[in-house]
Amino acid sequence: MSGSHFDVIVIGGGISGLTAAYTVKRKTPHAKVIVLEGKDRVGGRTLSVPLVGHNGADKWDLGGQWVGTGQKHVMRLLSELGLETYPQYTSGQKLQQLGGSKVTSYSSDIPSLSFWALVDLYWHMAKTDWYQRQISVTDPFSHPRAKEWDAISIGGFMDQTLYTQGARDAVEAASRVVLGCEPSQVSFLFYLVYIHMAGGLEKLLETKEGAAQEYRIKGGAQEISLKLMESIGEDAVKLADPVTSVCQTDKVVEVTTESGWQGSASFVIVATPPKAMEHMRFQPSLSSARQNLMKCMPMGSLTKIILTYETAFWREAGLSGEIVSNGGDPVLTSCPKGPVCLSYDATTENGSPALVAFLGGDLATAYATMTAKVRQEAVLEHLSVFFGPQVRTFLDYVEKDWNLEPLNWGSPVSYLTPGGMGLYTATIRKPEGRLHFAGTETATVWSGYMSGAVQAGEACALAVLHRIFPSCLSQEDLDAITPFLAQDHQGKGDTKDERIVCSILMRDKKKHSISVWWVVSAGLSLGIVAGTVYLAGLALKKSEIEWS
Amino acid sequence: MSGSHFDVIVIGGGISGLTAAYTVKRKTPHAKVIVLEGKDRVGGRTLSVPLVGHNGADKWDLGGQWVGTGQKHVMRLLSELGLETYPQYTSGQKLQQLGGSKVTSYSSDIPSLSFWALVDLYWHMAKTDWYQRQISVTDPFSHPRAKEWDAISIGGFMDQTLYTQGARDAVEAASRVVLGCEPSQVSFLFYLVYIHMAGGLEKLLETKEGAAQEYRIKGGAQEISLKLMESIGEDAVKLADPVTSVCQTDKVVEVTTESGWQGSASFVIVATPPKAMEHMRFQPSLSSARQNLMKCMPMGSLTKIILTYETAFWREAGLSGEIVSNGGDPVLTSCPKGPVCLSYDATTENGSPALVAFLGGDLATAYATMTAKVRQEAVLEHLSVFFGPQVRTFLDYVEKDWNLEPLNWGSPVSYLTPGGMGLYTATIRKPEGRLHFAGTETATVWSGYMSGAVQAGEACALAVLHRIFPSCLSQEDLDAITPFLAQDHQGKGDTKDERIVCSILMRDKKKHSISVWWVVSAGLSLGIVAGTVYLAGLALKKSEIEWS
Repeated sequence: MSGSHFDVIVIGGGISGLTAAYTVKRKTPHAKVIVLEGKDRVGGRTLSVPLVGHNGADKWDLGGQWVGTGQKHVMRLLSELGLETYPQYTSGQKLQQLGGSKVTSYSSDIPSLSFWALVDLYWHMAKTDWYQRQISVTDPFSHPRAKEWDAISIGGFMDQTLYTQGARDAVEAASRVVLGCEPSQVSFLFYLVYIHMAGGLEKLLETKEGAAQEYRIKGGAQEISLKLMESIGEDAVKLADPVTSVCQTDKVVEVTTESGWQGSASFVIVATPPKAMEHMRFQPSLSSARQNLMKCMPMGSLTKIILTYETAFWREAGLSGEIVSNGGDPVLTSCPKGPVCLSYDATTENGSPALVAFLGGDLATAYATMTAKVRQEAVLEHLSVFFGPQVRTFLDYVEKDWNLEPLNWGSPVSYLTPGGMGLYTATIRKPEGRLHFAGTETATVWSGYMSGAVQAGEACALAVLHRIFPSCLSQEDLDAITPFLAQDHQGKGDTKDERIVCSILMRDKKKHSISVWWVVSAGLSLGIVAGTVYLAGLALKKSEIEWS
Repeated sequence: MSGSHFDVIVIGGGISGLTAAYTVKRKTPHAKVIVLEGKDRVGGRTLSVPLVGHNGADKWDLGGQWVGTGQKHVMRLLSELGLETYPQYTSGQKLQQLGGSKVTSYSSDIPSLSFWALVDLYWHMAKTDWYQRQISVTDPFSHPRAKEWDAISIGGFMDQTLYTQGARDAVEAASRVVLGCEPSQVSFLFYLVYIHMAGGLEKLLETKEGAAQEYRIKGGAQEISLKLMESIGEDAVKLADPVTSVCQTDKVVEVTTESGWQGSASFVIVATPPKAMEHMRFQPSLSSARQNLMKCMPMGSLTKIILTYETAFWREAGLSGEIVSNGGDPVLTSCPKGPVCLSYDATTENGSPALVAFLGGDLATAYATMTAKVRQEAVLEHLSVFFGPQVRTFLDYVEKDWNLEPLNWGSPVSYLTPGGMGLYTATIRKPEGRLHFAGTETATVWSGYMSGAVQAGEACALAVLHRIFPSCLSQEDLDAITPFLAQDHQGKGDTKDERIVCSILMRDKKKHSISVWWVVSAGLSLGIVAGTVYLAGLALKKSEIEWS
């Protein structure tokens, strides 16, 4: 097959790349498409493996695992592929260890924090949600405070708005699990955009209807990619052969892999995490803006652990299996915190009991420096604080540190470091010549999730088809792809580079004045003091009080 | 030479790596050392090239070019290598374009800003300098506000402390040139440590005695590396052959290059920017902490332009050649700002007139998206705002975008994104088995500068010699290398991984309480109001004023 010409070459055999190939084939069955994947498997950041379990033949997800009815792109694809879902188990008490090492239980969506910590947390969340609603995903710098928010991290915003350790711990645990990093590492503006793309902060964090952790996929999430590969044909996917170079001319793009395979295509869809592009040679080189974006868009660190059991003993004790923790007390003599941030019930649809636990951000990094044995001991010790000594009766125990997965550079998603949002806005979805970009990081809806991967894959494929076979696109298709089109295909005239310049420098336009609210409240306070002093003086004068 | 065994293999033929090899040879002339460099030249981020100039045979620096008497490590090395320096030309008026597009001139160190902008700028600088003095370079989290400062960028701190556009522009221009990035991209805590390592903010920014821009090197800064190579022997430097893999066992490290060359060594000194390590395969893999550090430590973007002339016409007009700019008005129709942040006189020691101009941060990125021709036009147009139409009479015009230099990934230095300082403190100089780390990024004095490269190269070499030939080290040597030693060589017992864990998680220890000052001022205000109200009430009661 080496030396062949394709209509489209897709780089990256994760959900986004395979959805792109599938979309091209669905719209134009005659199109010649190939997907090139460096790993020896499809699925990218999803990976479903068989473990020793109660029923003997079940699979568990070591990567992405949840979907929700609010995620219309992935839900539609699941139904097209004939894949079924089942609800995340949530009955029973949840446990938490926030604001200290004490474990408390609760059953509603409201964590069992102290009154002040709850007020603190809800006020912080309300502010965050109020801000995210005002933010445009494709043009965040149209908000007057965008530059200010891009210059601080979530942690910086926490320092401005949170006063209790309980509330801080809750936000920190969320950041570690949702983005795989510390709140202090992420642009607060990116966080707002990220929340906006999911439709609200609650949607990201919860298991209820429409939220991110609502359903699991029967057979595991990797089934999506396996079914997509089946649909486009296994010979249209080349595995275990990383792309090394991508050379484009005005007319064609030549792609070469590590094994020496070469192919040319009219268009290439790069459906990898942004980071992966640093490890391929592009000719001409990628735009300076995109190269700089890659500097600002590292992948988080999230380690996932699955423990299978003979019985779901936590259910019998009235527990849901869900815990949230700040690390609590030391579980190893010389380490200040336990490793686990979050756990859930991970029992399969066939009833094989299991728990899933997450280590995220600095906790993942810190515990990754230990031997697997020491780390396992720490995880078990920490989990037993919540579930008792029975956690040690596991049938199987598997951990997946995605930092060690080749061609992945971390998980679950690439986040933006502070100050990087100008480059993100100008670049993330912008085609460069015959290269188009997909991957969940380019999505405008549920970016960072499997659903975002599907949306971006579809939209990017349609944007490419718009350039090859425009007649195959419906009006609905056209509406879906606007952010993924090259500017010269948006009917806005030329592709002058100055446009990018303007959009990178856009964030410099903001006025820097003292906040109106600051002035108003200072004025009010001064007014009250002055008024009272005046009245006091007046009264004193009238009363002629003797002070001596 | 392939297959040979060495005492030390150095990866990276910049100033730091070559200084390391030079130091090993100086202390133990019998030691077998080789330096492996991927580029076809030594010098790393220094590069001195001949240009068409007034005298016909002069060289100019396209990379690092300045040293100062405050930088004792590089000054001592220059003298050992027989290299001479000459002062940066500073006579005459300086020009600036800050807080708007108007060009103003000044001759002292005090920029010609409005009164309020000056107050604003000096108060901000005084605060920054006050904070940096309190920070420990090797243990920044011992400061109670460290975590707070790591969660915001310099930009976030600017939003808290600066109110005038003139002062903002000045700090922004400094960040663009000193670190090659926007203030919003850098951890404020890193900035404080970086300033501390140079001995103060003024030291970083100025040309006066002891500061970073005091002297230039005759023949160009690349001479340092060329002389070092001469000293250790040209056959001890292997050029144009990037290292691809580094495998260590308990006893030895095997290094392989792209050409297939293989060598083993007792110890390896990795003297590359942190980023470069992502592009080599390590077995066993580098520590999780170091891998995560690389995610937080991108290189800046700084483009340097040299223009040579027949005459130094700016000197004749009473100008020093020094300008600082916020970009001012558009110089191209569709671009909101001019490209140049800074320029200096770059006339050689032989009297060949020249100017050097810098494009940094977002301005570098934005203008890099244009063609070289359009960018040159913008630079000339912008410079002529300051120096008049004669800037167009150049003899030669060369630009160097270090993002395009292979194996470099940007310039001038790797900075820390917010939230990354825990990983930096725990990791940057920490040996991993038989791997030791040099490079200006690991320095503790003038990190980011040529002097830091020398300090780190020397200290790292001595730390390795401490493990091979400890008897060759003097007490002074031992004092110099403490931060570069593996913990088990610091006489503190074992190398338990838990140590790293503790130090990564150190930053979590900080208490998060409402600031004392906030409580005191709120209390005082409330007290004043309450007291006045009470007095007023008392007086009103006494006077029996009728309100009806």
